[in-house]
Amino acid sequence: MERYDLIVVGSGPGGYIAAERAGKLGKKVLLIEDDHLGGVCTNHGCIPTKSLLGGAKLYKHALNGSQFGLVVDGARFDYRQAAAHKDETVKTLRGGIEFLMKSAKVDVVFGHAKMVDAHTVQVGEKSWAGDYLIIATGSSSLVPPIPGATLPHVLTSTEILALSEAPASLVVIGGGVIGVEFASFFSMIGTKVTVIEMMDEILPMADAEFAKLLRRELKDVDFHLGCKVEEITAERVIYSDKKGERQSIEAPMVLLSVGRRPNTAGLEALGLEIGRGGVVVNDRMQTNLSTVYAVGDVTGRSLLAHSASRMAEVAVANIFGSKEMRMRYDAIPWAVYGSPEVAGCGLTESEANAKGIPTMSQTVQMRASGRFLAEEGKRAGGLVKVIANKESGVIVGIHLLGSYASEIIWGAAALIEAELRVKDVKEIVFPHPSVNELIKEACFQLDHSL
Amino acid sequence: MERYDLIVVGSGPGGYIAAERAGKLGKKVLLIEDDHLGGVCTNHGCIPTKSLLGGAKLYKHALNGSQFGLVVDGARFDYRQAAAHKDETVKTLRGGIEFLMKSAKVDVVFGHAKMVDAHTVQVGEKSWAGDYLIIATGSSSLVPPIPGATLPHVLTSTEILALSEAPASLVVIGGGVIGVEFASFFSMIGTKVTVIEMMDEILPMADAEFAKLLRRELKDVDFHLGCKVEEITAERVIYSDKKGERQSIEAPMVLLSVGRRPNTAGLEALGLEIGRGGVVVNDRMQTNLSTVYAVGDVTGRSLLAHSASRMAEVAVANIFGSKEMRMRYDAIPWAVYGSPEVAGCGLTESEANAKGIPTMSQTVQMRASGRFLAEEGKRAGGLVKVIANKESGVIVGIHLLGSYASEIIWGAAALIEAELRVKDVKEIVFPHPSVNELIKEACFQLDHSL
Repeated sequence: MERYDLIVVGSGPGGYIAAERAGKLGKKVLLIEDDHLGGVCTNHGCIPTKSLLGGAKLYKHALNGSQFGLVVDGARFDYRQAAAHKDETVKTLRGGIEFLMKSAKVDVVFGHAKMVDAHTVQVGEKSWAGDYLIIATGSSSLVPPIPGATLPHVLTSTEILALSEAPASLVVIGGGVIGVEFASFFSMIGTKVTVIEMMDEILPMADAEFAKLLRRELKDVDFHLGCKVEEITAERVIYSDKKGERQSIEAPMVLLSVGRRPNTAGLEALGLEIGRGGVVVNDRMQTNLSTVYAVGDVTGRSLLAHSASRMAEVAVANIFGSKEMRMRYDAIPWAVYGSPEVAGCGLTESEANAKGIPTMSQTVQMRASGRFLAEEGKRAGGLVKVIANKESGVIVGIHLLGSYASEIIWGAAALIEAELRVKDVKEIVFPHPSVNELIKEACFQLDHSL
Repeated sequence: MERYDLIVVGSGPGGYIAAERAGKLGKKVLLIEDDHLGGVCTNHGCIPTKSLLGGAKLYKHALNGSQFGLVVDGARFDYRQAAAHKDETVKTLRGGIEFLMKSAKVDVVFGHAKMVDAHTVQVGEKSWAGDYLIIATGSSSLVPPIPGATLPHVLTSTEILALSEAPASLVVIGGGVIGVEFASFFSMIGTKVTVIEMMDEILPMADAEFAKLLRRELKDVDFHLGCKVEEITAERVIYSDKKGERQSIEAPMVLLSVGRRPNTAGLEALGLEIGRGGVVVNDRMQTNLSTVYAVGDVTGRSLLAHSASRMAEVAVANIFGSKEMRMRYDAIPWAVYGSPEVAGCGLTESEANAKGIPTMSQTVQMRASGRFLAEEGKRAGGLVKVIANKESGVIVGIHLLGSYASEIIWGAAALIEAELRVKDVKEIVFPHPSVNELIKEACFQLDHSL
């Protein structure tokens, strides 16, 4: 039985980064994947959605470009071409991961991994021994116990990405990141979209005023908040509204995006502690079995691709590296890549207050940015909000809605990670004209001193 | 004669920020402007160019969107509409500055300011006294002593922005930021553009491989490098090429963008020390007269809008504030907003080496980013480069070419300002998928340790 320093199960952004980082440290690594390299992110999540959204944004701009000087005689969205581009992008990136594994000298085996014990993994007839194991089996779409949830016209995010044409109308159940991105995408290309959300607001991680503005900006999407889906029939979605009254809506196609569940099947046999959210880990990503680590969605913590990658680095550092790295969740950015984009890092104001942090905050309209005005026009909505600890001045949260939000937010992660204060941010020179300079503007509004 | 705590001459991003910051500190401030509020940046620079470029980018996307699913039957660029949008954007932003001055209780006077002495400024018949003076008179396009440089078809950047239709062809003399932005703009909308640059490469502040790639990506622009313009006639531009041979090119319209000169006329009378570059200042932006400060282009240092604003903050801090702030030039980002965008912050590798800094650097192709691939396709060029001090690991420069460069770069300014090391950047969680995460990737390639 061949021996490895590390066996990684699952090749999403948790697993492949773990394998690559360990391989680059000179360790002998085996990566096992039962589908395609790249996991949900590359194959059924981040990447295909961004490919489709990229095309849809071009289409939206073509339709709405007249005020900026763009005149088009006729524009349409070619779904088949967009889907072909998406498939090509996914294939290219899978190839990239394959190349990365080769360059890190990681062995890759395809097949379903059976965890035999804390040091042995089996695929089919073959077994391998590993000094350490990293479990990165990810998560799957949650199909809730609603009557009709498994009808053929009720799709998960994976299934909806395999469509070859756009539906005329779509009911999205669940207004989290996945639901909102698909709602934005399909409404941009002309599908009539309705979102039904059980909570009183979409995007639970977003600052409330941002979620509200996003709903307003997604003007072609109907939102039904505080509504509980009771049943899905072949033709309709039946739900009880805020007042508890029974309502229904025509729904030739339904997207179920109510959450994800960790892929823990088969892990109990190992003796792993599994909690409500997923595999239980400490801040080194170590499970209750000292040589077994778990990273990414399977832990049920921060279900984001880059969180999984960071967990992978923490796990590998604690197995083979400095052993000083700990997983922290307070400076992890997130982004919703619809149109407009929304992004955030750190706490919302209500989260900060719930933690007992005394806050000061400043919200700035994006139209205060010359660049935003130049590129989006004066009727476009957009917001930047900076939240800081009122006593120490340390930045605890930055939130953005509007153009470039997803590419601006990394700097917020840097500020929050470095524990910079409002007065420190005022010392940074931001480029002009830009949307990002509104972060500095918000800081000056919080504190005019020089 | 009315007395002010501060008189600011010039209302560009140096002057209006100085006035606003001082006003918000409760000081009595007078701002004098001889044209429109906002200076060159708002009226003839950053903002109108970004308005035009925004529309041109939409047009380019409409023409090249087919691989992403956008089909247009016919697209054209309506120059008059784009120009109207540009004018409206400028007007809106001027209004914004006017509002800002009101909210900071700054008095504004329009007219030509005559500096009577270090405490007295006169406009027409009226004079005002100021405890302190901030000179923010900006710069003007340099018209070099080339025969024909003042012919009517030879335009400065201010004049070319006033066109009401696109020229069929354009010769741009000077391949700096201004020349390259206009070259990119006009070539996107179908003008045949030639750039003649005296140096061996365009964009002197850019890393050499970035400037080279930019030229390649601007495939519809002809670049003539190492060429010296000798004469401009009514029909042609005559230049000597690299080998010293006389060449000429047809030029029904010429843009002169060979540099800018500080607006120092009338300042000598004050007894101000004026050097080759402009008004001489120390790192507090103080001139040789202790109560007179100068900020922005008139100092000849870092001719960028946001540098001017930063200088304004430094001046106001040293006059009315903590007196601890000093102007530093090592973490000022810059961006060229054509298509593709280029941006940088800190040193290029050759600048660092010239300063005797031992460097390590890593360049990453943007197509390694899933987002870039999804939105730009696999044939698009793009680069990210991180340069660090080889001994300390401190980041000294970050350079970007490709989508979102101008909105990503602020985070680089934050990293460099905070003197973060490669190992610190590896601790930051970057959002996935994004273009910015390639900065982290480059850092990991520089140092695989965990």
